[in-house]
Parts: sequence; C-alpha cells; structure tokens
Amino acid sequence: MRIVVLAGGIGGARFLRGLKAAAPDADITVIGNTGDDIHLFGLKVCPDLDTVMYTLGGGINEEQGWGRTDETFQVKDELKAYGVGPDWFGLGDRDFATHIVRTQMLGAGYPLSAVTEALCERWQPGVRLLPMTDDRVETHVAVDLDGERRAVHFQEYWVRLRASVDALAVVPVGAEQSKPAPGVLEALAEADVVLFPPSNPVVSIGTILAVPGIREAIAEAGVPVVGLSPIVGGAPVRGMADKMLSAIGVETAAAAVAEHYGSGLLDGWLVDSADIGAVAEVEAAGIRCRAVPLMMTDLDATAAMAREALALAEEVRA
Amino acid sequence: MRIVVLAGGIGGARFLRGLKAAAPDADITVIGNTGDDIHLFGLKVCPDLDTVMYTLGGGINEEQGWGRTDETFQVKDELKAYGVGPDWFGLGDRDFATHIVRTQMLGAGYPLSAVTEALCERWQPGVRLLPMTDDRVETHVAVDLDGERRAVHFQEYWVRLRASVDALAVVPVGAEQSKPAPGVLEALAEADVVLFPPSNPVVSIGTILAVPGIREAIAEAGVPVVGLSPIVGGAPVRGMADKMLSAIGVETAAAAVAEHYGSGLLDGWLVDSADIGAVAEVEAAGIRCRAVPLMMTDLDATAAMAREALALAEEVRA
Repeated sequence: MRIVVLAGGIGGARFLRGLKAAAPDADITVIGNTGDDIHLFGLKVCPDLDTVMYTLGGGINEEQGWGRTDETFQVKDELKAYGVGPDWFGLGDRDFATHIVRTQMLGAGYPLSAVTEALCERWQPGVRLLPMTDDRVETHVAVDLDGERRAVHFQEYWVRLRASVDALAVVPVGAEQSKPAPGVLEALAEADVVLFPPSNPVVSIGTILAVPGIREAIAEAGVPVVGLSPIVGGAPVRGMADKMLSAIGVETAAAAVAEHYGSGLLDGWLVDSADIGAVAEVEAAGIRCRAVPLMMTDLDATAAMAREALALAEEVRA
Repeated sequence: MRIVVLAGGIGGARFLRGLKAAAPDADITVIGNTGDDIHLFGLKVCPDLDTVMYTLGGGINEEQGWGRTDETFQVKDELKAYGVGPDWFGLGDRDFATHIVRTQMLGAGYPLSAVTEALCERWQPGVRLLPMTDDRVETHVAVDLDGERRAVHFQEYWVRLRASVDALAVVPVGAEQSKPAPGVLEALAEADVVLFPPSNPVVSIGTILAVPGIREAIAEAGVPVVGLSPIVGGAPVRGMADKMLSAIGVETAAAAVAEHYGSGLLDGWLVDSADIGAVAEVEAAGIRCRAVPLMMTDLDATAAMAREALALAEEVRA
C-alpha cells in the first residue's frame, strides 16, 4: 500500500511513527512543510523536515519534540558572546551540523529535495521524505505590535512571541510562484491513500496545499483522503492552531477544520471521542466521520489512530 | 611608538603576547597571514587570524596553541556521522561559531577586514588585527604523492599529510592579483618599527610579502625592520619551516633565512644564542645581528625577546 502523508513538525512526525507501526509494510511518502524554514546565522534551517527526520531516525529530543537528543549549546553561547542574533531560536550543536551540511549542499547547487534525501541517508527514517517544494516559501504572520501592523516570520511569531498576540493574517510568501518538489506529484498520482495527520491545518498542511498543483493532485488522485483533527474539545492538542484558524476566519473546532478542508478535498475525518457531537456536522458536510481517541500519548495510542485512519480510508473506498 | 608586526599563527601570536608585555603602551598593528585560510563545510576558516585573536583575547587552547579552550566536538562528530568531510581538520564547537559569524558577514558583503574587526570587538586583542588582504589568496604546496605531482592546500599538506612528504614548491595562489587590505599600507607608512616574529618565513611572512605593495611599503617606510629567527640550531622551533625552506631552495639555518629576506628588506636579525656562530655571516650580508635566547617558553622569555628586538631596532635607527 502506498500512503502519502502531508506533514508539519511535531504532530506530523509523531503520527508518522504511529503509522509506521500500524502499517509496517506500507510504502510511505511524506510531503513536508517547508514554510517554517528560516535562515539563521547564514544557515538554512528546516524545522519541520528535521523534526520528521530526527523523530523517525531516532535522534529526536523526545521530551521537547524537536531538536536533537543529548544536545549541547556551545555554538549558541558563542554566537551570543559575539553579539550575533537572534538568540530566541534554540539551535544546539548537533542540530547545527545538519544545517551546516544542508547549507553547504544548497550552496553547491543541490536542490532542497536532493539535500533532504542525502541527510536521510544517515537517518534512515523509513519513509521517503520530500519537501513540498524546492522553492523558497516563507510563512509570514501579520500581527499588531504596539499599535503597528507588522509581518513577522512564522518562527518569530511562534518561538519569539510565543503566539502571545493575535495573528491577523497568515501569508505563505512565495507559495504562488512555487512548484512542487520532484516526486511530489508522482507520489500523489500513485498513492492508494492520502493522510492529513493532526498537524496545523493552516501553517503546516495549509501551506503545503498552497503550493500550486498539490491540492489539485490530491483531489484528482481519486483515492481516499483522510484527516485527523488537531483540535480536540475546541482547543489545539498542542501549538497555536487556534490563533492561526482565527486569522483565516475558521472556528477552533474539529468540525470547522474538516469543513475548511472541504468535501472536495477530504473524504474522511477523525475527531476525538470528546468531539463525538461533531460527527453529524462533518457528515452533513459530505465528509465521512468517526470519533476515536486522538491523543498521541504513546506509540500504541498513535498506532491505533493510524489504524483508524486507514480503516476509514478503506470504508471510503468501499 | 607604532609597531607593525607581520604574523602567521602560533609563533606570531605568542610573540605578540610577549611584545604587548614588553611594550604595553605601544600602538601595535598586526598584518595577519590569510594564505592558510580554507573553506570547510561551506564556512570560511582563517586559522592564523583566529590564532592571533584567540591568543591575545584569552580564548586560546594554550596547550595546542590553536583552537579554543574548553572545546567540545559535537558538530565535528555529527558531520562525520553524515559522512561529510574532511575529517582531518579539527574544528571544535566554539571555533565553529567564529566561522559561522565570519561566513555570514562575508555572505552579507562585508570584506574580511571588516569581519575581522567585528570579531575583535569581542576578543579585544589589544592590537589592531588586519588581514594582509581582503582578496582570496590560498597557499598551495606541490607534492609527489604515489609518484604523481599534485598541488594540495597548505592545510592539507600540514594537517592531513603532517608535512610527511617533501614540498616541491609553494605557491600563494591569487597573491599576484591581490591588494593589501584597507589600513595595511597606511600602518606601514606610519610605523616606527616593523617586526617579523619567529613565524614561518615562507608560508606565513613570505605569503604576506607576496601581496603586491606590502614588501615595497616596508622597504620604503624608512624605519627599522627587525626579525627573529624561527630556525634554531638548524631546525624550526616548531612547524615545518624546514620543508618550506627546502621547497624554495633556502637552507634551514638562521643566517640563511636572514639572507633570504635580504638587507634590502631587513635591518636587524635576532638569532638564538645557540646560533652565535651565524652572527658574523648575517652581518656580512649587511644585516645587523645579535644572538639572544629565542625560546618562547613562557611570557617572560617571550617579552625579553621582544625587548631585544626593539633594542636592536633602536640600535639600527641610531
């Protein structure tokens, strides 16, 4: 079975670990969000791709969900001593090596997709990890800071400002001019199932869908497209999806997210057992829906979620 | 008193520490060799400038004479895990930060001289540190490897091959097209004394002199030019000056190095007490010479050497 998964960072990576356990023989292609990518200290940092790579490759800091395990911060301390910023993005020494290798390869002319493949040769994530695009797309968030409207990089909004102010708009800068990375459309065309993990529907999956051609390829694949709600009981399980949904005028509710994707894209939707009341609303919107436990508390629970998603896909197919 | 010092790495840096102790009120400008510079992992590494900066700024690894104190090697280990080379150049995590800052600034368009000044704002070396040039000059060494003549980067010759094969030629690639960095000619024109520390006469001081205009500016400054022999008892105190001297057809002897510089450039020369027999030969070549202890065993011994050099300069001037 060929499964294509659109993934953001932590939520997507953890779901993928469950999916691999649930479908060990499946051929899994991950289309990773690169809208969070940022240049720091002249180095290209791809937080979501790295989170997927480190998580599936056994190098992730399990507690925080991003960055490397057994990490040290000598480089960061030195950069601070040089007075070179920003200091709000916590890059560790091990993590720096990844960005150094990536930046060197990009500088040598390799596209991000080739670089990602090369990095994955070490990590062996057990999935094919593709960036959504080789082009530069950067998610910017419009905010009101001290009475002035400003656009900040998504990482600045999320990491520096800790999503403490309202997001007025979310713009994936460069998305309109971007093309899907090599392999993305092919993977979708050959997929048996497409899954949306409980990733942020705006700045993770929404950004991937903003790359011209990807949404269409999913819709035209003619295979079940099943998503898992990142909203449980009216709040995001983690992260700031509520702020992002508000910015695009969507209610922070499991049903509202499904309707935002729409029945033209989504065939099936899993909501958490706590949101069983949302099932009827989602189904009324033409999307098959089930309520199951959606908390990725451990690998077993996550694998069970993946099995439910695959079962719903089979139900849709039948 | 305005002193200009042409410096390589370890020998130059240690001598400068002694000079600062010997002449605490002097205004010292250091013209640093950049022929050893190398691009590693996409980062610009300037070993000699950094050795001077770290040594005078209190950040040097005293035992090895280069690199940072309290160093760790997480980034290096990770690069190795990625299979990315070379692995023979031992960059530590703290050191990496310097190269990251430098590379970012160069990428932003700053010349190396401005970058060096910015880095020195942190280190406060107590001297004005100038690269010999802002242009790219790279010292290559011709060697015979397995019967084939090859040109290797100086760092590859010295660090990877450990100078274990003969150097057939030494070429400062790019030197002919290079220009002295801003401030270099001005410092020489305003100098009261010019000193050549016991640095490598070929790949350190020789490379600096290969930048068109620098040798002429020293000769035309009309002030005492005094050097200290890096050769003691027919062998280099440290490093591979013997191999480099052979490559350019100069005997590994204190007198031969003075004669190589020549009386047109050099006014005074200090040889070690062990080489007292060389004094007459050097003086016969028109260069005033004295035999004094030249082992930089500690700060006091090094300061005494600097005082001898300044005393010889005054003798020349009188």
